[in-house]
Amino acid sequence: MQTDNLLKQVNFIKEIDKLKYIQRKTRLFNSDRHENDAEHSWHLAMMTIVLAEHSDKPIDVLKVLKMVLIHDIVEIDAGDTFIYDSQKNHTNTAEELIAAKRIFGLLPTEQAEEFIAIWQEFEDGITDEAKFAKSMDRFEPLLQNTSNNGGTWKEFNVPYQKVYEKKSAIKKGSSSIWEYAKKLLNESVNKGILLKETS
Amino acid sequence: MQTDNLLKQVNFIKEIDKLKYIQRKTRLFNSDRHENDAEHSWHLAMMTIVLAEHSDKPIDVLKVLKMVLIHDIVEIDAGDTFIYDSQKNHTNTAEELIAAKRIFGLLPTEQAEEFIAIWQEFEDGITDEAKFAKSMDRFEPLLQNTSNNGGTWKEFNVPYQKVYEKKSAIKKGSSSIWEYAKKLLNESVNKGILLKETS
Repeated sequence: MQTDNLLKQVNFIKEIDKLKYIQRKTRLFNSDRHENDAEHSWHLAMMTIVLAEHSDKPIDVLKVLKMVLIHDIVEIDAGDTFIYDSQKNHTNTAEELIAAKRIFGLLPTEQAEEFIAIWQEFEDGITDEAKFAKSMDRFEPLLQNTSNNGGTWKEFNVPYQKVYEKKSAIKKGSSSIWEYAKKLLNESVNKGILLKETS
Repeated sequence: MQTDNLLKQVNFIKEIDKLKYIQRKTRLFNSDRHENDAEHSWHLAMMTIVLAEHSDKPIDVLKVLKMVLIHDIVEIDAGDTFIYDSQKNHTNTAEELIAAKRIFGLLPTEQAEEFIAIWQEFEDGITDEAKFAKSMDRFEPLLQNTSNNGGTWKEFNVPYQKVYEKKSAIKKGSSSIWEYAKKLLNESVNKGILLKETS
């Protein structure tokens, strides 16, 4: 039984290597090089460990780590959707659920069910762990774009109002990180790397 | 105080982005593309979550995750040392300790001390958590090399005996994964992708 499990787990470990080929729109800090999903997931895991103390609610850090480590694995099949894409909803498409079932389904049954549930919990964004995980997922590209002279905001002409709206998910996880994030957004407007639309 | 901490933590988060530029000798699964340290660390974290049940001893999974996520950060300053390098010892050089103090030292004092201690615990390899973390660190490139027709074993003419010796660290963390690893090594010899030196 243990050996059966191990073979399934090794298959899964090999399959998820493909996450290293999924390119995000955002780029590394002070860089032209696009970030891939595996690098992004590692960075969110590091941010979770380092920033957990700023969560407004007590959180199970191990659970948040599992969430951020696996949250993009569905993109192996479903691809990366740009958060500011107006055509396609970023989260929880039918395509992503099929991907979750196929990829996590490589694992032994009990583990597959656990991973699908954790991924779904992250997507739903209701629990304190999911809220904090989503804060991390919004905060990393904000830091990247400010270091890259506007980054994807400038590249895709995303206005302040839309960025503010997406980034406000940070508030649900951490009010102190949100205060800091708002400051960065205002500084970005002042520097001219993020444009405020006038009505 | 919380804001002070946050600014230090953000500096650290930006600094460790450099891990994405540190290339390892090993390549991705079925691929020519070298793996970088951030991708490697993410993969070890995933392996830890998936394979924890195979640990011979009960382990604190959160601690193992912290270990594998941070274990290579010192290479931002000290560079990657190839495990089969006969000139330079892979682990815990004076250079790496200086790097640990500089990079983790960007964090608030208490957190810096925690991270240095966890990194040191991993390097020492004595606790059950460190043993399991090291098993993961040895097991990933074994899987990669078998998928890459011998990979770094062939590229650098590393014989079976030397590979066996390095990989036997897996045994300290998990006897079942070690049984499987030995099987893979034997299969590799039979396939001619890993050479047994004759005396």
